Amino acid sequence: MSFGIDDLPVRDELRGKSPYGAPQLDVPVRLNTNENPYPLPEPLVERITERVREAARHLNRYPDRDAVELRTRLAEYLTKTSGYEVGVANVWAANGSNEVIQQLLQTFGGPGRSAIGFEPSYSMHGLIARGTGTGWFSGPRNDDFTIDLAAAERAIAEHRPDVVFVTTPNNPTGNAVSRETVLALYEAAQAAKPSMVVVDEAYIEFSHGDSLLSLIDGRPNLVVSRTMSKAFGAAGLRLGYLAAHPAVVDAVQLVRLPYHLSAVTQATALAALEHTDTLLGYVEQLKTERDRLVEELRATGYEVTESDANFVQFGRFEDSHEIWRKILDRGVLVRDNGVPGWLRVTAGTPAENDAFLDAVRELKKEQSA
Amino acid sequence: MSFGIDDLPVRDELRGKSPYGAPQLDVPVRLNTNENPYPLPEPLVERITERVREAARHLNRYPDRDAVELRTRLAEYLTKTSGYEVGVANVWAANGSNEVIQQLLQTFGGPGRSAIGFEPSYSMHGLIARGTGTGWFSGPRNDDFTIDLAAAERAIAEHRPDVVFVTTPNNPTGNAVSRETVLALYEAAQAAKPSMVVVDEAYIEFSHGDSLLSLIDGRPNLVVSRTMSKAFGAAGLRLGYLAAHPAVVDAVQLVRLPYHLSAVTQATALAALEHTDTLLGYVEQLKTERDRLVEELRATGYEVTESDANFVQFGRFEDSHEIWRKILDRGVLVRDNGVPGWLRVTAGTPAENDAFLDAVRELKKEQSA
Repeated sequence: MSFGIDDLPVRDELRGKSPYGAPQLDVPVRLNTNENPYPLPEPLVERITERVREAARHLNRYPDRDAVELRTRLAEYLTKTSGYEVGVANVWAANGSNEVIQQLLQTFGGPGRSAIGFEPSYSMHGLIARGTGTGWFSGPRNDDFTIDLAAAERAIAEHRPDVVFVTTPNNPTGNAVSRETVLALYEAAQAAKPSMVVVDEAYIEFSHGDSLLSLIDGRPNLVVSRTMSKAFGAAGLRLGYLAAHPAVVDAVQLVRLPYHLSAVTQATALAALEHTDTLLGYVEQLKTERDRLVEELRATGYEVTESDANFVQFGRFEDSHEIWRKILDRGVLVRDNGVPGWLRVTAGTPAENDAFLDAVRELKKEQSA
Repeated sequence: MSFGIDDLPVRDELRGKSPYGAPQLDVPVRLNTNENPYPLPEPLVERITERVREAARHLNRYPDRDAVELRTRLAEYLTKTSGYEVGVANVWAANGSNEVIQQLLQTFGGPGRSAIGFEPSYSMHGLIARGTGTGWFSGPRNDDFTIDLAAAERAIAEHRPDVVFVTTPNNPTGNAVSRETVLALYEAAQAAKPSMVVVDEAYIEFSHGDSLLSLIDGRPNLVVSRTMSKAFGAAGLRLGYLAAHPAVVDAVQLVRLPYHLSAVTQATALAALEHTDTLLGYVEQLKTERDRLVEELRATGYEVTESDANFVQFGRFEDSHEIWRKILDRGVLVRDNGVPGWLRVTAGTPAENDAFLDAVRELKKEQSA
């Protein structure tokens, strides 16, 4: 055996683990990581180029450590799209919402503390908890993947977690969580500890309903996290952000690595924020395609979880990995998220979605034959 | 009192703390954060622009999670400049060397574990230890800021830290650590635990001596960390990297946030690596200026610590903060690093260094008058 990870003095809980990440396969139709299928429009590419050229001329200097201009523009975007007014003091940004969540767990979780999520949900919540030494509790869901509120309240009262994650729309299942449920979870979390509630709205722009952003009003222990990866079509940019009481923004600055957001990231994000209207136009197309996927999958005889995201969970399969493989054999990569009996497909372009639908219709015929 | 950080359920050890970071003041001559004073040459700015334009066209997709092309080019740079051959499997990159160090502490430190540094040194080592729940021990230095090897070996034997930091050239003092001392510390660390030794070479390109990169040969518990912030004149880019045994690179991937390095960061770094020769030319100019600062400060009657970095520590002052303020009054911002009796000045352009030298000569005259 050659020298490997376990021969190093790594932390015990890392032994035998593998890195997180979907397989990156070279397949014609990739509908596995909830990327936006629409490349940025060329005028935006040119605007990014202009802004990065300007930033590159000062690249020998550290970037704005507090990313004030970027946070101001993000606050304007949130205000415009939600109707609830937030300012720069309410907003914080980092390298992807993963880093936002890591900073929140370093601030409010960490050794001797714990967090809870209602699973299946975004698995990075639990992984980042582990990475920050935060204990992790897995809360329950109903069979239709909605949160079982009574069971969730009992779990919060029993475990008294320091951080409660609520993902809405939920990933990988796609369904949204109601305002009432989030409010009830917030009350339960305050009664138990009080603890922070992180509402992960990575996919909110694709929802039939509204953002829960205004819940931060009068609730300093509630944080809404967001990303530019999905609605802004900028997964490659790695720009996540949060909105919360200004004290939360002050607090995460105690743990953020100084100058964590590069000047080129800030410049690129600022350019994208100038083109919000165009990008939100693509979101509307994707919502239509998402609804078509739901309808067609059901018409073909699959079970489908309600979706407010840019992806759809469908099933049920005795062996979902085998079906994943059969869809892949037809040139379409979907996600086997480890939810027994289910798979997840991202809404792509109309042509990509047609290729996917053709593949799963074929499979259905094979099964009936 | 308005609602603030301490009204939130933050971790106890964060209460009453302030964020890390030098004051960002608008001053004609800024010699306080060890930035490279030379803007990137215009052909490199254009190359960055080209590469970012191309990356922006695929920005809707996640970046290469493993940054293979970038790590390959970084390995080539290390091989070329050190004469010791490393490959892509030896190299890992992240958002600044701060993130590299955070990933190393998440992998090899963390709750229930500890790290040691020999202080004064780069204060982020201890702060990132705190942020990752790693215990921190402060090891001793001699009066001339060299590492007191016997005392260091005793501290390692006593505390049995899981991670040992050795910064060479050291920040904020400027002096390098000898190969023999690093080897002795490595042996002490292996005898005590065994533990990881992180050799922080952020400023190595400015050194009179050689990189200790080749020490990774046959020493899987030794990591060399580097940055593009200083020698590459790219503090705004936030690109740090490490070289080590491939098992270390595999291990940090267990804690890295997936897709942590944005496509624009990777594109910009790749462009800069194409212009290495030009950028290393600036390094030679800065080394000359650094040596001039040492010489002139001594000629003016100041004490100066030996420097192998792009900055110089000078003193001694009864009240270094008062001297910092007096230099600032003359339009020059240096760093008050909290080393009692000393200040730190970054080597700038010849004109910036002249402005600084004029200021400190004036102060000396005032004091003698």
